[in-house]
Amino acid sequence: MSDDRLGQQIAFLVQADRLKTILRRTPLTDNSRQENSAEHSWHLALAALALSEHAPAGVDLARVLQLVVIHDLVEIDAGDTFAYDPVAHATKTDREHAAADRLFGLLPSDQRQLFRARWDEFEAQATPESRFANALDRFQALLLNSQSGGGSWATHRVMRSQVLTRMAPVQSALPALWPYVLDVIERACTAGAIVRD
Amino acid sequence: MSDDRLGQQIAFLVQADRLKTILRRTPLTDNSRQENSAEHSWHLALAALALSEHAPAGVDLARVLQLVVIHDLVEIDAGDTFAYDPVAHATKTDREHAAADRLFGLLPSDQRQLFRARWDEFEAQATPESRFANALDRFQALLLNSQSGGGSWATHRVMRSQVLTRMAPVQSALPALWPYVLDVIERACTAGAIVRD
Repeated sequence: MSDDRLGQQIAFLVQADRLKTILRRTPLTDNSRQENSAEHSWHLALAALALSEHAPAGVDLARVLQLVVIHDLVEIDAGDTFAYDPVAHATKTDREHAAADRLFGLLPSDQRQLFRARWDEFEAQATPESRFANALDRFQALLLNSQSGGGSWATHRVMRSQVLTRMAPVQSALPALWPYVLDVIERACTAGAIVRD
Repeated sequence: MSDDRLGQQIAFLVQADRLKTILRRTPLTDNSRQENSAEHSWHLALAALALSEHAPAGVDLARVLQLVVIHDLVEIDAGDTFAYDPVAHATKTDREHAAADRLFGLLPSDQRQLFRARWDEFEAQATPESRFANALDRFQALLLNSQSGGGSWATHRVMRSQVLTRMAPVQSALPALWPYVLDVIERACTAGAIVRD
């Protein structure tokens, strides 16, 4: 490899391939298997395009796409942390920061900083773009759980109050979808997929 | 659903989930299984970000991301057409146009036109953005085949001249990667993964 930058970029893309082997708790809509974090990230990018008119005014869609494409890469080392597992969440930050150091560290230094900044931005939920991206992340999991007949809600006996807390970013950054979310949760409670509390 | 547009957008996103079940001939880098077209599309989006400095001058990266996120959706109905199968390629256009009519037709009419225009743009390879996106598509398959020890080249006894023809978009739209591509092909020929002709 004559070009060091190119070599680093290719090494990063080869490592990134492993995100396709990281399984989430959420099943595909046809309930055939668990979703992996790479195809999940693609689904969020598509959702950003399809639902862009519902984003807060002035959101930079290109930046949203970058956030969702990058946001789960740390799971290659840190694994997927189940949304409703408080024990795993206690160690999530340390595990994911170490993963970000290693994975983004494969890139040339300027890109290392850029990719890390995008991941930090997604995590902090302090910009309109990251709030919209996080809302899509929550909404997409709800969509798959509801379409697959309960998904991770039913498997792990998740309670209505937990789902409502988890979906709060949708209420604030994707309010047009909130009535739909409430309707899905109500139906899932009635069907016994979510425990009414 | 009180909002017809939102209902159509959600129905589209539910259908799109099926792209995760469409298998390509290319294996993951660890050779554990075939790649699916949804995670492949995510990998292209990440490659667009990581390799953006090698794109032709003036390329709109946001548009490239849109192209790669949308480009394989038609495979939900039409299936993945193997790059080195001339018989399947003879019917590819008709199958994919019918798929585009149905899938993008799930969206509200303005979005139907926008998504269809993006897919048409990717296919036509007439803009700098689509040429870059197509080059990434070809390069990513080469990366996975080479990393997995031969992948679809070895399984289907593909010849060097076929691979060179397939990779031509990289030479024209990602020329900085061309020496790497030639090196990979040469090594794969030596290893017997590609048939030297």
